[in-house]
Parts: sequence; structure tokens; C-alpha cells
Amino acid sequence: MNEAVAPRRARGGGGAARRAERTAVRIEAARFIERNIPNLDILNDETIEIIERNAETVLAEIGVNFPENPAALQRWRDAGAEVQGDRVRIPRGLARQLCATAPGSFTQHARNPERNVEIGGRNLVLAPVYGPPFVRDINGGRRYATMEDFRNFVKLGYMSKWLHHSGGTVCEPTDVAVNKRHLDMLQAHMVYSDKPFMGSVTEPVRAQDSVDMAGLLFGADFVQNNTVMTSLININSPLTFDATMMGALEVYAANNQACIVSPFIVGGAMAPVSVAGTLTQVLAEILVGVAYAQLVRPGAPVIAGAFVTSIDMNSGAPTFGTPEAAQITYGTGQLVRRLGLPYRSAGSFCGSKLPDAQAAYETANSLNVGLLSGVNFMLHACGWLEGGLVSSYEKFVMDADQLGALHGLARGVDITENGQAMGAIAEVGPGGHYLGCAHTQENFKSAFWRSDLFDYKPFETWDEEGARDTQTLAAARVSKLLGDYVQPHLDPAIAESLDAYVAKKKESMPDAFG
Amino acid sequence: MNEAVAPRRARGGGGAARRAERTAVRIEAARFIERNIPNLDILNDETIEIIERNAETVLAEIGVNFPENPAALQRWRDAGAEVQGDRVRIPRGLARQLCATAPGSFTQHARNPERNVEIGGRNLVLAPVYGPPFVRDINGGRRYATMEDFRNFVKLGYMSKWLHHSGGTVCEPTDVAVNKRHLDMLQAHMVYSDKPFMGSVTEPVRAQDSVDMAGLLFGADFVQNNTVMTSLININSPLTFDATMMGALEVYAANNQACIVSPFIVGGAMAPVSVAGTLTQVLAEILVGVAYAQLVRPGAPVIAGAFVTSIDMNSGAPTFGTPEAAQITYGTGQLVRRLGLPYRSAGSFCGSKLPDAQAAYETANSLNVGLLSGVNFMLHACGWLEGGLVSSYEKFVMDADQLGALHGLARGVDITENGQAMGAIAEVGPGGHYLGCAHTQENFKSAFWRSDLFDYKPFETWDEEGARDTQTLAAARVSKLLGDYVQPHLDPAIAESLDAYVAKKKESMPDAFG
Repeated sequence: MNEAVAPRRARGGGGAARRAERTAVRIEAARFIERNIPNLDILNDETIEIIERNAETVLAEIGVNFPENPAALQRWRDAGAEVQGDRVRIPRGLARQLCATAPGSFTQHARNPERNVEIGGRNLVLAPVYGPPFVRDINGGRRYATMEDFRNFVKLGYMSKWLHHSGGTVCEPTDVAVNKRHLDMLQAHMVYSDKPFMGSVTEPVRAQDSVDMAGLLFGADFVQNNTVMTSLININSPLTFDATMMGALEVYAANNQACIVSPFIVGGAMAPVSVAGTLTQVLAEILVGVAYAQLVRPGAPVIAGAFVTSIDMNSGAPTFGTPEAAQITYGTGQLVRRLGLPYRSAGSFCGSKLPDAQAAYETANSLNVGLLSGVNFMLHACGWLEGGLVSSYEKFVMDADQLGALHGLARGVDITENGQAMGAIAEVGPGGHYLGCAHTQENFKSAFWRSDLFDYKPFETWDEEGARDTQTLAAARVSKLLGDYVQPHLDPAIAESLDAYVAKKKESMPDAFG
Repeated sequence: MNEAVAPRRARGGGGAARRAERTAVRIEAARFIERNIPNLDILNDETIEIIERNAETVLAEIGVNFPENPAALQRWRDAGAEVQGDRVRIPRGLARQLCATAPGSFTQHARNPERNVEIGGRNLVLAPVYGPPFVRDINGGRRYATMEDFRNFVKLGYMSKWLHHSGGTVCEPTDVAVNKRHLDMLQAHMVYSDKPFMGSVTEPVRAQDSVDMAGLLFGADFVQNNTVMTSLININSPLTFDATMMGALEVYAANNQACIVSPFIVGGAMAPVSVAGTLTQVLAEILVGVAYAQLVRPGAPVIAGAFVTSIDMNSGAPTFGTPEAAQITYGTGQLVRRLGLPYRSAGSFCGSKLPDAQAAYETANSLNVGLLSGVNFMLHACGWLEGGLVSSYEKFVMDADQLGALHGLARGVDITENGQAMGAIAEVGPGGHYLGCAHTQENFKSAFWRSDLFDYKPFETWDEEGARDTQTLAAARVSKLLGDYVQPHLDPAIAESLDAYVAKKKESMPDAFG
């Protein structure tokens, strides 16, 4: 992997700079998806009614735990919930009512305004894999991730046309101290990409660092008045909201920054083995998490999430791209839309150890569900391997390529006169051929989505060129993208202020691992 | 590949036979899919209206060709169409009116009545790949298909739990004369499987052989009164109905056997490059093909088909699993349902040369579209490789495994008291674990679909076992299935009559190739 930052081209004045600009690699970036096709609603009205009633029963009779968080308990008490020890029981309807102040959609700003994303409504924003401690590439195999890998994935995300968001922990940089790595990660997103990004959630102080660094990048006032980060707050299912995650949420909500409030569920372990039971628990957890964000700051932007996998009951391994996970994702989408909230779910999920056919079947199943279930923010949209233990270089570009197909499908059917093509049908007639007709000549460039990765060559050509499989083609694409990478312009004063912040913070404490 | 037919076990009386029966491999066969989830309708009412109006305009003003088929032209004349040369122009509404006598669904009988399929309504019947002249396996690579390969694929289809149909030309047995291979192919489906199958369409006389051989298998009277074959009649798009295909259709329709009437379209070549234009042409062609079958015999069972791929405008290669193909498949489903006809489309389509990630992404995209677009008969549901040039042994079992996921998704959400799992949520409570709870213990066996092929093991175990990719796992499964194969019982008198028919027909004419 090429770690060296390519020299900044296309900056400064003079003819040399202009020539450099003309020869610089053009970075294409698609706008977030605005769906022009319907969602698939698999739950009927009666089923929705039962699940919504059951979720309220869970909150009122069983309740949820907010351990080690007296401030949260006090907020719930003040809001009218019944608190006993860590347990919070919420009267029917209260949580849903509290959710009403959360915006139905919001803008997440990027440092390049062209990369701003609208999260909610009919939109779909795609962000890369989050969290793996390992990376894999075709040459080096599987190994612990480093900060060098992290920067490479940020660069690949920046270079990926169909990816709208730089993400967060694209891999876990295990060569940097646990208490300091969030600084390097944030800086990498800010410096190596101009797409929107996520903040740190592993400690409330790291969330505060994220807000402070965003202030350096965007201006502190801008941050207070605009959402510039979307961060991932996992619920400790079943029904537990731990103090670390809630502490990070409190920081972000108080600063008007967005949180994904997301149950993390392996079905049969953290939720019932049944789809309807899981939907009930997911809805109950979403209601509480979103309501809690609104208790911290009414109007704070929130995304209702669901990370749900099935389980292989033979081995206990989580399984991906399965029909039950699909049903839960479709169903949660309906429940979240009835709350009027943006929805996060689905991704390039797979259990495979390699970016092979298993990985691709599982991933394609989940990506398609994500589009059709009305997801607004898809985390893990590319690069996920081995149940999320591994960020795969090759799979990152393979999945990122497939995201283009989602864009095409979402576009819907063009029914203009040109789309109807009645002139072409008349021109060609029975037994004719459309390749040469005027309509084809006018439309062929944009008519069909085309993979930038797959092999479309005749067998003989493909065979002569080494009979390469997808992983091999993807490895070549990774090298090409990293080789072509050029850092997007950033005001040197801002870059220096980020350097200084990170250096000062790192000096202020000894390294801690684990 | 193991070609030897395993000795027939579990036949005849006596203790040995009973012991054999107990040790025989149990063949599991799933019932055809009965959907309990909605279809995805991507066309709005206005778009449908425009396309339907345009299709009628195409038929009335441009018309279709029925070359070298005076009887067909006479049928159209008698029905009220305007015929000039080979061109048939059909007044608005006439074709749709003629389609009304086609049944909305029908039973295709198998020689084992447990394998009968209901084609139409909310059902989905899955049949394997059709037509490739080549095969590929992990050891032998890509080579011309033989009759031995053909029998192997029939056996794999018989052994595949989620496959409801034995299909037709699972590969093209190039080692048998063109004018005789249909006899061997039909006999193989009849003898090596007990699932329903397809007839020959390459010449009208071969269609008649198919009907006659079905008469030997089912009884001639039974065949006249019941549908025992579904055969593939491709329309020579654009708008041309050639005499060979129509001749085969005439034989089948006259004998009350089902035909799939299916435009064969590479978008931009045989139809306009736009989705709406292609839908218009597809609808026009379906209307004519189905209407023509009803002119031959009102009430003849017909499936309205659409084989549609996009094209890579750089190379001219057909492309698969693309968003435009998906839109056409969804849209055609809506148009066909408004005609009240069974629908055929989608499949394990891919352009890849190998059963790799490209193949799996493309295939999964198309399989999911097939389920959600309301397809009733999915040809090519497994085994398709390299744009349909190759039947792949490994991909056959890979895809066939994924068909299980479609079954799971189609089942919908169980909202019974057991499905709601409120007892489990109360029992486990906040911070608990569901693995041991009573509800999980009672439901875990059927709660989650599980691949019979994929690797779900921990990384270390998988690594120790050779770090096998999906293709390698699939190759092992192919060997296992062919090794375990046991021929289903067939009355020896019927088997002999089929032998005699094939031998006599083969003797009656010299070999012809091409």
C-alpha cells in the first residue's frame, strides 16, 4: 500500500499550477441518493399495530436500564418515568411523544459544501465500514489494522464516486494508544477527505475532542449552529443504555451534533429469535434512545438505527445477508418512518473470511434490502468482511462499485418522451437492430450503469489477460486509486491548528492501551 | 465428476431392501414458494397507462412479423388483424382481449405428485439454468458440455432442496447429434429426476417428440388433460415471431402444454436503450405471443416472460445484475399482473467468467429482484455463468443454496403469540441473554435460515482447514451430492418404453450437427 501523501497539485498561482490542475485526476463524487422508487413495506397494518403496542408494554412494564448515570435517571424522572434503581419504566406513549421534537431530516455539513448530505426523507447517504480491528489485502492477508491502513481507507473513501460520507472508524488503528487514536482518526478524515465524517464515541471526553476539532475545521460558531458530525451510539441490547455511550450522546446532543441511536443485536442472543419479537425490542430501544437525546436537547438531530444480524444456531456465529435480517430491516424501516425519523440500517455485511462469492451474495442481499427498506444512512456500505472483524481493501472497492447500482435503481423510470422511445421503436421496426438508431446514439452514454471494476471482456481476452477473478481486479483498482490520490485543498492555518490540537492533547496524557 | 448411476436402493421387498431404505440418503425438496410479502411496484399508475397505450400503438401502427408461417397469418386475419406480407398489425385492444382466455395460474404435474408445481398467483417456482454450450468446474475448467454433464446437472437439480423444477437444457450436450439430443435430454429429466421438466422447442417435430415421450411417462390421456411440460418460446425481438419457435408453440398449445412466451432482449440492441421504451416493446411482444397461443387453443396455459439484460456500451457485452435490468423486471411484473398472467423473469444472471464475487453480486441482485417483482417461474435460478455461455457446477450449488434465502424472505413475518415473543422479552429483561431462554430453546431450529454451503466457522478453524473460498467449498458439495445421488424409482415398464422410443427415433434418421 502506498502511504505517502501525493504532492498537492492544482494549488497556488502560475502556469505550472494550472497545468497541474489540468492533468490532475478528476475526483467524481455522486450526490446522495434521492429515491424515486417506493419502499417495500412487508408489515401489514395489523402487524404494525401489535408491535407498536407490544413495544409500549415493554417500556411500561419491563423498562430499560440506565446504569451508572444518575443524571440520566433524573432526566427520566423529571419527564414522568418511573425510576427504581437503574431501571426506568416509561408510561405508554411518553417515549413516542418525546421523539416528536427530533427533526425528520437534517443537513450534515462537509468542509466542502458540495459534499453536504441531507439525512432523512427519501434520501440515502452511504458511509464506509466502521470498527474492524483487522485489515486484509490480497498480498498481506489478515493483520491488525494500523493508522497507515486507516489513512488508506479514508483516501479510498474520498476516491469512491458512490460514497457520500467518509465514515468514522474505517478500521481500528491498533498501533496508536487507545486514549489517543481518536485524535489521529478525526484528523485523517478532516485532512485526507472533504466528505462528511463521524465523531468519536468511546468516551465522553473523546466526543468533546471531536466537537472541539470540528470547531477548528468549521469554526466553533458554525459547529454550534450546524450539524457537522454524525456519530454512532450503540444500545447495549437488550434494553440497556450504558453510561459511556450515553455520555457521548449527551455531548453530541448538547452540541447539536447528530447521533445514530442503534440497537446492536445478534438475533437469538441480544433479542428474541423471532422477527416480530426482535422488531418489538428494537422499536422499544429506539424510542428510549431517541427520546433520551431529546431530553438532553429537544430538537437534537438523531437517526434511529438498527444493526441486526441473525445467528447460526449450530456455531453461535452471527450470519449476514439472511432472510430474517432482511425482514427485520424492512420492518424497522416501516416502524421508524411512522416515528418520522431518519433510519440507519443495512450495509456490506458478510460473514465470509475472503472477498469471495459468499461475501458478495451476503453483501448484495443486504445492500438491496438497505435501498428498498428506506434506509437514510447506511453505515458499513463498503469494505466489511468477516462479520465486521476485518476491513478489506479489495472488498472496499468491490462494494463501493456496487453502490453505483443502488444509485441507478433508485433513480426510477424515465417516462419523458425521450424515455418512451416511441420514435426508436418505429425507426427500427420488426427484425431490426437498435445499436445504430438515433435514439441509441443520443442516450447510450447514460443509459446503463456500468461497473468500474468488473470484467466485461470476451472470454478469450480475459483468459489472455490472466483469467483474473474479482479480488484480483479489485487489488489493481486499490493500487490505482491510492496511486492517483491527491489530497483535497485545506487552508494551511486550519491544518496547523489541527496539528497543534492533536499534539497538545497527546502530550497531556500517557499512552493507554485497552 | 461421478457419472455412474448409483445402484437403486430401497426397492423391492425383504429385509435388505428395508435396511437399504433406512440408510438411503433422504432427499429434501421444498414446496414452491408461496409469497407472504408484497411485490415492489416501481411504476406509478400514470407510467403504466402511458406504457400500455404505447404498446397498443406499436401493435396497431408498427405491427409484428410472423415470417414463413402462413397458418399464423391466417389465424391473425381471422381474428381481425390487418396482415400485409409477414406483417401483422393488431387493432388496439384485440391482443389484450385474446389474452383473457389464458389461465391466471395452472398446475404443472410431475411424475412424483409431491413435486407438482402451481405456476401463477403469489407463487414462485424455481428452475435451473437453460442453454449453455459450455460447462465449467474447478478441476476441468471451461469445456464443451456433454451428455454426461447434462445428466450430472439433472442429478444436482434433483438433489437441490430449494429447486422445484428440473428445467430443460441444463447444458447443451454437444456430443450428441443436434437432431437427436432432445431425446436424450428428455429421457434424462424423466429418469434421473422426479421433478417437473421442460420440453424441446428447437423444431416442431421435437416438440411433438416431447409430447409423445411425456405420454409414455404419464399416460397419453393424462397428458391431453393435464399440463406436464412448460417450454421456453423465445420471441426474436424486436417484434418478430419466427416460424420454428411458433411451430413449437403451436404443438404445445394444441396439446394443452404450457409455453413461456418470452422476449429475448439485450437492451440497446433488441430494444431501445431506455427502460420505458423496453417495457413498451416487451409488453407489445408479450401481448402478441400470448394472444397467438390463445388463437391456437383458447385456454392453453402460457407464462408471460421477459429475458432482459443491459449492455456495456463500451464493448457490446450484455451485463447482468444491473439497475436497468432490475427496473425492467419490476416493471414487466406489474404489466403482466395487469394481464392476469403468470410471469417469468430473473435468474442467477452474471457476466463473470468465474463463480467469484462478481458472479455473486450480479446473481444476488437478480435473484432478489425476481422474488420482489412477483416472478412466478424463474428459469436460470441456479448455475448460470459467463452471460449464459457456461453452466457452472460450483455456481449451480452456490446459487441453489441462496434460493433457500428467497424461501425464508417470502415466508413473511410470524405475528402469532409465539412470534411476538413477549414472554421471552419479559423473561430475559434488560442486560440479559436470550440464548438460554425457553422461547429460544423452543424455536431455534427453525428460527434462522442457514446456508448449507457457506463457511460460518471461526477464523482459526477455517484457516486450519485450508482457508477455502466459496468455489472450493462448492466443489466439495458438488462431489458430495453426486456421490449421494440415488435414482428415484420409476416403473421399469415405463423406463423400457422410453428406451425403445429413443432408440427407434434415433435409428429413423442420420445424425445431423448444426
